[in-house]
Amino acid sequence: MDERGLHRLIGTIIDPERLSDDCAVIPCGNLLMVASTDMLHETTDFPAGMTDWQVGWMAVAVTLSDIASMGAVPGQVLLAVGLDRPERLAGIMTGARDCCTAFGAELVGGDLDAHRELTIVSTGLGTVRPEHIARRRGARPGDVIAVTGPLGEAEAALAGYEQHRKELLEPQPRVAEGESLGRAGVSAMMDISDGLALSLYDLLAVNDCGFAIETARLPLPAGVPEQEGRELALHGGGDFELLFTAPADIFPVPGVRTHVIGRVIPERVVLADGKPLERRGYLHEWGG
Amino acid sequence: MDERGLHRLIGTIIDPERLSDDCAVIPCGNLLMVASTDMLHETTDFPAGMTDWQVGWMAVAVTLSDIASMGAVPGQVLLAVGLDRPERLAGIMTGARDCCTAFGAELVGGDLDAHRELTIVSTGLGTVRPEHIARRRGARPGDVIAVTGPLGEAEAALAGYEQHRKELLEPQPRVAEGESLGRAGVSAMMDISDGLALSLYDLLAVNDCGFAIETARLPLPAGVPEQEGRELALHGGGDFELLFTAPADIFPVPGVRTHVIGRVIPERVVLADGKPLERRGYLHEWGG
Repeated sequence: MDERGLHRLIGTIIDPERLSDDCAVIPCGNLLMVASTDMLHETTDFPAGMTDWQVGWMAVAVTLSDIASMGAVPGQVLLAVGLDRPERLAGIMTGARDCCTAFGAELVGGDLDAHRELTIVSTGLGTVRPEHIARRRGARPGDVIAVTGPLGEAEAALAGYEQHRKELLEPQPRVAEGESLGRAGVSAMMDISDGLALSLYDLLAVNDCGFAIETARLPLPAGVPEQEGRELALHGGGDFELLFTAPADIFPVPGVRTHVIGRVIPERVVLADGKPLERRGYLHEWGG
Repeated sequence: MDERGLHRLIGTIIDPERLSDDCAVIPCGNLLMVASTDMLHETTDFPAGMTDWQVGWMAVAVTLSDIASMGAVPGQVLLAVGLDRPERLAGIMTGARDCCTAFGAELVGGDLDAHRELTIVSTGLGTVRPEHIARRRGARPGDVIAVTGPLGEAEAALAGYEQHRKELLEPQPRVAEGESLGRAGVSAMMDISDGLALSLYDLLAVNDCGFAIETARLPLPAGVPEQEGRELALHGGGDFELLFTAPADIFPVPGVRTHVIGRVIPERVVLADGKPLERRGYLHEWGG
């Protein structure tokens, strides 16, 4: 069973409506609070050769990216660390704090435990006005589909394109962009952690419409041959860009680089250049 | 370096003021939001013989206990599960949901990952009026020291006293008690997860006074010889009772069973029957 299969099982135990976004949404006075939790393991989630500082940075970046995808402003981060060697703690905590500081959040607490394999769970909280929140549901036929930057860079680094190592190891969550896009009135939004193709299928699952992209419009990783770059952009994991749909008249959104890559269509299908897009990307797999 | 040593290191990287309570405290409209995250591993945190349902129950119970210790009402729980075998997920999620439901919280989301050893991180959010929040700091000489129920029961179960297995495997966080005590005006409060002795030293670390208990007043686990029971009550781990200090005139607190076990004193020391109490209990230890 793959990760999405297990998620469907979870939807039979807890309210499935709760599972359709990158964050849980909680009332908080006049605002909404969004909350996201992400678990990362050394062997499966942290590329080889990362420093401890980068491990801490990335653990926070993934959760800030979830908050950004809701159009929210990050507030607090909690970090639970299952530590294999105590001497790693200072580097990890410093990286985590620096990522918080860089994006206006505060590291406010956590938990600490001993573990054979380094395991980090970061939980982030953010706030957003109800009228500015962005969700995965909400796309409307006729909206454009857009992303905030080049896709496939992290996977390109894994494939040996050294010029993209910084995007892989020190990802920049699109925090300011997410907030601006929420305020500008996007109709649906999410972050692209498992690759563009799977993300489009995630949008398909919660919307009553479909998504047609043109691969010639994809912003590709620099310095990679076009065909390989397109494969990485469609199916590579580890990107931190935002994927969103919006009425064309919201552009330009001040301060946000946007790349229109397609259009929302009435048919419930994901198309690339008019043909069904292969549902393939970065997914955790269990045997059995 | 032990867990508390590493916590001191963390205090050099993030605001140490943030680390002095069981939860982080976050403004939320007219209320305060409290947030706590707890990491549990199969081999170190879940007693052998637990069912998956009990594993899920306990993962939530530890975080609800942290929320209760602040005098807050639990609201939402997020669960990150590093799963060793996919067939365990249904039991774990059901146990987690049932514990949430039992204490008025809602399981609103989480994350899922594959992992060699089962690892669960539960994050809980709760709310409390600013005037009712309870913290570890605030004890005043002359206050009484009290607990909400028998101590050492979980450790007694581990020592073979079968009648306490339910307290070990399906712990009951003192949620209603925590809220009532916060409202009644306790001066300091925390939960006793690592044993009474270490908890008293935790209070000592953040208060400008000391704590003198009388071991004859400790509520002991039923059916255990007195001397052994006292050892378990002082130094055993896994209890879910609340430890608090309060002016004597707040008692009785409606709906809360309280056991007065001592008195706050001006000297910065932890005493049991007039002698320094051994600083020993349940602590994660790293070699080196």
